[in-house]
Amino acid sequence: MEELAARLRAFARARDWEQFHTPKNLAMALAGEAGELVAEFQWLTPDESASLDPATLDRVRGELGDVTAYLVRLADVLGIDLVEAARAKLAENERRYDPALYRGSARKAPKLPPDRRGDR
Amino acid sequence: MEELAARLRAFARARDWEQFHTPKNLAMALAGEAGELVAEFQWLTPDESASLDPATLDRVRGELGDVTAYLVRLADVLGIDLVEAARAKLAENERRYDPALYRGSARKAPKLPPDRRGDR
Amino acid sequence: MEELAARLRAFARARDWEQFHTPKNLAMALAGEAGELVAEFQWLTPDESASLDPATLDRVRGELGDVTAYLVRLADVLGIDLVEAARAKLAENERRYDPALYRGSARKAPKLPPDRRGDR
Amino acid sequence: MEELAARLRAFARARDWEQFHTPKNLAMALAGEAGELVAEFQWLTPDESASLDPATLDRVRGELGDVTAYLVRLADVLGIDLVEAARAKLAENERRYDPALYRGSARKAPKLPPDRRGDR
Repeated sequence: MEELAARLRAFARARDWEQFHTPKNLAMALAGEAGELVAEFQWLTPDESASLDPATLDRVRGELGDVTAYLVRLADVLGIDLVEAARAKLAENERRYDPALYRGSARKAPKLPPDRRGDR
Repeated sequence: MEELAARLRAFARARDWEQFHTPKNLAMALAGEAGELVAEFQWLTPDESASLDPATLDRVRGELGDVTAYLVRLADVLGIDLVEAARAKLAENERRYDPALYRGSARKAPKLPPDRRGDR
Repeated sequence: MEELAARLRAFARARDWEQFHTPKNLAMALAGEAGELVAEFQWLTPDESASLDPATLDRVRGELGDVTAYLVRLADVLGIDLVEAARAKLAENERRYDPALYRGSARKAPKLPPDRRGDR
Repeated sequence: MEELAARLRAFARARDWEQFHTPKNLAMALAGEAGELVAEFQWLTPDESASLDPATLDRVRGELGDVTAYLVRLADVLGIDLVEAARAKLAENERRYDPALYRGSARKAPKLPPDRRGDR
């Protein structure tokens, strides 16, 4: 991830594209790629989406690569550690979704109060 | 990343949520979080987006955590290596966007023919 | 709008595509098209986005056409009146954003309590 | 639709929000709302999405209202006629997807050459 962020930084610098890579613009690029990803699955049943034919899997891999690249670039520009941010959210969701209460259920839990959200 | 994927897997298993985590559904969840991320930036100027106040930065960190979590989970379910996929796309874009031709320009390059897309 | 909904219905029926047009799938298709739309603007400054060259404007018109078509089709399948739904939201926002308090400000207002949300 | 566009224009003017309503920003707002819409359906099966409980249907109506409002506002700012744009896309798709060839099939047709795309 570190190395990927560095390569993306060099890629942008070599083309003088840092001017375009504001957080606003990178968030848009990420949303655009997430849209392309979701479009790959739009007419598939959930079951079909779990056993993709090789051509679709290749396109999905490409879209995941695009999403990852913009996500890593955006986090780099903002100085955010993605794995750390995901871990904090997971810790919050582990508190929010008690397995005893939410087992097999897709309903949404209420948000935690701010002081119970953190990892610590 | 490996460890994050494993924790997310355990989180889903402990709640019997694997039934919900089809690639189709996870792609939707990712698109939903990308939408929340883009909404954080919608009324900011590009400059403002580059110097976020602490409260906004905190929310953005949370959204990036959510996007990362669903992205890692989706890739795990599909058996795709995200860093590898991003590297392949970057290699493709290094060929597609010759620095001499695209320096300082945001215009789109034509797609490469399939045999010139790969990393090798 | 009514006539457009009817033409889209006939278009789907003639191709036996009603099986694909579940609300879930149509919401994905809409999100995918919204992603293509946002991608058209991602590297433009706000000012540039307000004076598009003819080729970009044409592509944007096409994306707006796609978004509209899926939005109208989704509302039709769900039995929702889009203009009515938008009017209700606008009435809610007229209450939520007092011009005296939010003039020239992009900050978000707190949500109204449920009993003050409606149009009546 | 005309009247909705006029009300949205007045709503923005009364709050001095026209400065925020660039096409770039409105496209982001639309993508954000499309993300909230898709999130409503993410854990539902396609069948469940076709028979929503009243509370979910209410939230979906609200999201459709938000998407419609931003779509109409964006088209107004750009001077684009949404119904006309959707009709042109539908006409293109009627040519592109011959019912005899695409009956019951979700596969994508190749794009038409530019001179066969139009409504005329």
